[in-house]
Amino acid sequence: MSQKLRPEILQNRARILLSCPDRPGIVAETASFLYRQGANIVALDQYTTDPAGGLLFMRVEFDLPDLPAQKKALEAGFAEVARRLDMQWEIRYAADRKRIAVFVSTADHALLELLYQWKTGELAGDIVLVISNHETLRPAVEPFGLPYFYIPVTPETKPEAEARQIALLTEYRVDLLVLARYMQILSPEFVRRYPNRIINIHHSFLPAFVGARPYERAYARGVKLIGATAHYVTEELDEGPIIEQDVERVTHRADVATLKKIGRNIERIVLARAVQWHLEDRILTYQNKTIVFY
Amino acid sequence: MSQKLRPEILQNRARILLSCPDRPGIVAETASFLYRQGANIVALDQYTTDPAGGLLFMRVEFDLPDLPAQKKALEAGFAEVARRLDMQWEIRYAADRKRIAVFVSTADHALLELLYQWKTGELAGDIVLVISNHETLRPAVEPFGLPYFYIPVTPETKPEAEARQIALLTEYRVDLLVLARYMQILSPEFVRRYPNRIINIHHSFLPAFVGARPYERAYARGVKLIGATAHYVTEELDEGPIIEQDVERVTHRADVATLKKIGRNIERIVLARAVQWHLEDRILTYQNKTIVFY
Amino acid sequence: MSQKLRPEILQNRARILLSCPDRPGIVAETASFLYRQGANIVALDQYTTDPAGGLLFMRVEFDLPDLPAQKKALEAGFAEVARRLDMQWEIRYAADRKRIAVFVSTADHALLELLYQWKTGELAGDIVLVISNHETLRPAVEPFGLPYFYIPVTPETKPEAEARQIALLTEYRVDLLVLARYMQILSPEFVRRYPNRIINIHHSFLPAFVGARPYERAYARGVKLIGATAHYVTEELDEGPIIEQDVERVTHRADVATLKKIGRNIERIVLARAVQWHLEDRILTYQNKTIVFY
Amino acid sequence: MSQKLRPEILQNRARILLSCPDRPGIVAETASFLYRQGANIVALDQYTTDPAGGLLFMRVEFDLPDLPAQKKALEAGFAEVARRLDMQWEIRYAADRKRIAVFVSTADHALLELLYQWKTGELAGDIVLVISNHETLRPAVEPFGLPYFYIPVTPETKPEAEARQIALLTEYRVDLLVLARYMQILSPEFVRRYPNRIINIHHSFLPAFVGARPYERAYARGVKLIGATAHYVTEELDEGPIIEQDVERVTHRADVATLKKIGRNIERIVLARAVQWHLEDRILTYQNKTIVFY
Repeated sequence: MSQKLRPEILQNRARILLSCPDRPGIVAETASFLYRQGANIVALDQYTTDPAGGLLFMRVEFDLPDLPAQKKALEAGFAEVARRLDMQWEIRYAADRKRIAVFVSTADHALLELLYQWKTGELAGDIVLVISNHETLRPAVEPFGLPYFYIPVTPETKPEAEARQIALLTEYRVDLLVLARYMQILSPEFVRRYPNRIINIHHSFLPAFVGARPYERAYARGVKLIGATAHYVTEELDEGPIIEQDVERVTHRADVATLKKIGRNIERIVLARAVQWHLEDRILTYQNKTIVFY
Repeated sequence: MSQKLRPEILQNRARILLSCPDRPGIVAETASFLYRQGANIVALDQYTTDPAGGLLFMRVEFDLPDLPAQKKALEAGFAEVARRLDMQWEIRYAADRKRIAVFVSTADHALLELLYQWKTGELAGDIVLVISNHETLRPAVEPFGLPYFYIPVTPETKPEAEARQIALLTEYRVDLLVLARYMQILSPEFVRRYPNRIINIHHSFLPAFVGARPYERAYARGVKLIGATAHYVTEELDEGPIIEQDVERVTHRADVATLKKIGRNIERIVLARAVQWHLEDRILTYQNKTIVFY
Repeated sequence: MSQKLRPEILQNRARILLSCPDRPGIVAETASFLYRQGANIVALDQYTTDPAGGLLFMRVEFDLPDLPAQKKALEAGFAEVARRLDMQWEIRYAADRKRIAVFVSTADHALLELLYQWKTGELAGDIVLVISNHETLRPAVEPFGLPYFYIPVTPETKPEAEARQIALLTEYRVDLLVLARYMQILSPEFVRRYPNRIINIHHSFLPAFVGARPYERAYARGVKLIGATAHYVTEELDEGPIIEQDVERVTHRADVATLKKIGRNIERIVLARAVQWHLEDRILTYQNKTIVFY
Repeated sequence: MSQKLRPEILQNRARILLSCPDRPGIVAETASFLYRQGANIVALDQYTTDPAGGLLFMRVEFDLPDLPAQKKALEAGFAEVARRLDMQWEIRYAADRKRIAVFVSTADHALLELLYQWKTGELAGDIVLVISNHETLRPAVEPFGLPYFYIPVTPETKPEAEARQIALLTEYRVDLLVLARYMQILSPEFVRRYPNRIINIHHSFLPAFVGARPYERAYARGVKLIGATAHYVTEELDEGPIIEQDVERVTHRADVATLKKIGRNIERIVLARAVQWHLEDRILTYQNKTIVFY
């Protein structure tokens, strides 16, 4: 789970994320490679889809003294290992805090939770940009010293709006987009630019109540639990890999406004968990699902 | 919540369930009527869909000394009140323990939980009959002294099978049908005979994964919580009023077999809760939803 | 559950809270009285400790047209009923929003949640005063237009500090004190002034880890769930009637800082639930426990 | 999570459990060793108490073709590695299913759950013996073909009773003792014989309500959640390392009998989880806490 890392630790901390055809020797090779580099493994998690020959997913977190100077050697060296073992891989550096753009509309609760966690230093990344199709939340954002861009969206103006958004995302070198109750649907073209880099909070327990007005529909269905789901956005609405979900109990006494009030706390906390796991490089995806090493 | 009632209490215990257009005076009339009858209210729950003029639902549980001899007067008297206030109503007598038929296929866990609660005296009704489309569970049932009827069902033989089932339900004077992982779909004609008298446990968190193979589909979707739902059966599969639901957390490490194992405990406990509430006359239905006064 | 009430409804909305020796006729008398006054019951909840002759607790919420003008008659009239039936009783008027003083130290999360719910109009009362033994949270509070009083407390200065606090509470006509992670222990004399009017959030699942440093102790004990408890403050530390509790799952991977982070969300949401129920007059106490009619 | 293993897989499946001073190279050495032995790692979990030099705990599950013939070499070889790295270690063979003795008194629910999971083949061990201080559950046990020993216990006869128990445990070569609502307290001498080999289910959410009558005390305290805790038994009552806990929500309406009924399901499921994790060698202990690699 998340531990705030001091800067001197952070700069020598990195993670290898890899997947490859499972076969004997992968842990040995990876761990031995790291050992020879002078690294100390602080966490290792793996998951194999089938011990008899499926896919192996691994996350190794390690400390390497003087890491900044060692990066080239580390990457060149591991590229060798990866080649031999047919790996897809990435090395992520904990000191390279991800830059986050938060998209909002008018609901503030999910955004406020992220701002709060960022302000306390707990969020393992940095919010650098807020984009909204409304002016409503500007007063909530600007006191944090963050740029707030109001980009309205209508069906006719969507391509231009998205072009503006993409330009800002590029300008601000954004690594992660967080849709914090952003009520516009991103076009497939937009989504394709950021595979597994857009996290949305959907205000229902997916796959129940995909799409619009989930609380109204939950109320109509008479469910006894409501929930929220954080997921990576794909081209199909609310169909992307689920990262985290949670629920809360309700009774017949809860009207739609009450469901929304209860749901608010689930939404913000589920989104914050998912975002933090992403920032800590704990999430791998496979067959439209996530493997979360927390 | 459920309290086992001793026989001498049980025989004087009854419940009025009513719904009517909400207006001032309904509680006063109902409570005053009961007082004049010599009854003592032990529980009163009500819910109004709209204080400004919606529907009122009420459950009043009371003790009336010498109730068996008072039934006629009670019912005739309340019929008067009900007429004046335009009520739909029923009086249920706690001593008239509901007779339950359990429908099973091959999974035993939900059935075993009901049998266990019945055997301990906690179940507020009596299992009188078990019907199955397999022979598998006969050895689990007959030691309880219960009749077990094997009635296989194929698409072609379904009408005859259901006719046999209905004949048995009539012969055994069954009040409540519990589908305890019974894997056949009841025909609309069958269902229509028992409105709000068939409780099914569906092994998913409705409305997610309606229909067949919910665990396989939950696995494919990569949900992080799985659940089970007890509901009244209506003519539309898995669409009836939800009585109770619960969930359990899962990770990527859970394969389908594991989901089924975890789900088993949720299914049996959710079904048992729903059945007990029904037996205690705690459930009212409205707009395909339930109002549960627990 | 909580529904935001429009002002014109609010002014005619009231609640009778009563307890008395249980006997037949209490609901009838109370409901009939209200009917004769011209009131419409919108909610009625009751609980009897023993149907065979215990204590009855009841909450009746009703709308009475032109209530402001009817108060005297209502109270005089019900006093009669109460006398006859040996009731302890109170009438609370929904329009008389309770005035809340929040006590804080340095942790802001619980306070921020209350301020948020107040700002959205969901909180059924008004925060009028914030008192703290630190200056830390002044910047978080004053933008809300609230008075913030810094009153440091040491063992030697506690009597004077409390005297100042009491003076403020009196000046601001405070109805409810909320200790939102306020880290000072109130003296028995202070507590006695506000029976069932001080709600504290204790950062553990009571009765586990009473007193100081509960997260450190939870960590040492290796519990697999951590929680928070909202309760009325009595003269014995953390021993007062529990209003609400909730938990969250943790593993060995959670260090103390992580437990505190996870606990933060439980604390703020549990405290907010308890405060709202109190504001809506949903809590009765009995034998150091609460009866919550939600 | 638990996956039922087919016999041909089981016989080649083993786990190394180890702890040692954390330093670079431990994963590399362990994984390389296994690779050289011809093993394929199917699961690896580790936890370090402090990356800067604490204790490392690891569980490695692997398949080694022809394992039965390889055991000697495997153990001799790893003993070498362990010596160099100052490890405490054990190799556990999945085919060596642990032999379980269940101790019961009169409550059957926890026992029945274990028997059920054993009968379905899900339990990763074998129940071989049931010991009770009452005759009550003999009829529930003997149909499973299990030996049931009635050994009454009084304060005066406890030493002889325990001696008989120990003799049976030795005769039946019991690896794990499960106290399934066994209501006698084991003596320190008894407990010392089976360090981390006695799992008890305590019917409260520890550390709340240690000792006797936890439900009565939970009722008196007015908690809003009740729970159960599975833990290793140590010489101090209810103080041993917690393996698993879970809770369920209750209201004022739940009397003690209801709390017990609700608690029953939590007890049996929490105990079953803990037992299964132990059988799968997923639990390590450290500072009176457990590290569970599930």
